[in-house]
Amino acid sequence: MSAIRRLLTDGSGDFGWQDVDRLRYKAEGSAPFKDITRQVLFSQIDQTCELRYFEIAPGGYSTLEQHQHTHAVLILRGRGTVRIGTDVQPIAEHDLVTVDPLTWHQFHAAPDNALGFLCLVSKERDKPRLPTDEKRAMTSDSPGAVDPAAAG
Amino acid sequence: MSAIRRLLTDGSGDFGWQDVDRLRYKAEGSAPFKDITRQVLFSQIDQTCELRYFEIAPGGYSTLEQHQHTHAVLILRGRGTVRIGTDVQPIAEHDLVTVDPLTWHQFHAAPDNALGFLCLVSKERDKPRLPTDEKRAMTSDSPGAVDPAAAG
Repeated sequence: MSAIRRLLTDGSGDFGWQDVDRLRYKAEGSAPFKDITRQVLFSQIDQTCELRYFEIAPGGYSTLEQHQHTHAVLILRGRGTVRIGTDVQPIAEHDLVTVDPLTWHQFHAAPDNALGFLCLVSKERDKPRLPTDEKRAMTSDSPGAVDPAAAG
Repeated sequence: MSAIRRLLTDGSGDFGWQDVDRLRYKAEGSAPFKDITRQVLFSQIDQTCELRYFEIAPGGYSTLEQHQHTHAVLILRGRGTVRIGTDVQPIAEHDLVTVDPLTWHQFHAAPDNALGFLCLVSKERDKPRLPTDEKRAMTSDSPGAVDPAAAG
C-alpha cells in the first residue's frame, strides 16, 4: 500500500520508523554479536530483494561471518569499522561497502558512536557460516583480536 | 569485488561516490523532468535488484509517471514533496516512501533545497507510463498544476 513512513525521533538519536518493528539481530546465543538491532524497511511483494537497516550501539559489533551471497551496504548513520578478509577500514556516513562471496566480514561501531547501515539482500540467500568455536571465543571477548584469514 | 567506495565531497553538497558514474535521469526529451541525475550504487551479479540514487537540484522534479512495479524509496538527503495519486506530502531525510503499482507519482525538490533519494528496483521491470500530451504540457511548466487523477 502506498505510504510515507517517517523517521521517528525519540531523542536518543537511534533510528526508527513508523510501522517498522525493531527486531533482534539474530537469536541470542546463535552467534557472537553485541548491541545490534535489525529493521526491515522494504520487503515488497513484487521484488525478490529486501532493504534492511542494522543499528549497532557504540562499542557493539556484528557477527564475524561469511556467506555465498554478496553484501551491499550503505552506511546511513555514525561511524565505525568494517573488517573484510584481513583488512580493517574506517567507515562513515554514506560510504558504500561491497563484500564478496565467502569473505569474512564484521562491522564494529566506534566506541563513542553508533553505526547504522542499510543492507540490500535477496530474500532467498544462504545462511552465514561462522568461525570455529575457538575463533568464536576470541571474537566475543576481544573482537579486534581474531584473524579472519585463519578463522575459516 | 569487495570494496569501500567513499562519499565524495566536492564542496557543492551534491552526493557522489568513488567509482560511481553520475548518469542522466532519462534521455532528454523522452519525458518531462528537471535537474535530476541518477547513480547506480549497487547492481550485484547475484541479485535481481538494484539500489539507485537520484538527486534533484532545488526546484527540480522527476517525471510524473506510473508503472506496474512498486516503488521503494528512502530519502537520503534534503527535502521536498512527493505526489502519490492526488496527495502531495512533504518529505525529508530518512523518510520511507512506498508507491503502489499503477499509481501516479512525482518527486519535487524544495525551491531552496536539493532532494536525494535511494530507490530499490528489480533489474527487470516495466517501463513507466506517462500522462497524455495535454497533461504533460501542464507538468513541464507548472508541475504543481497537474491533476494526476485525471492524467491517465
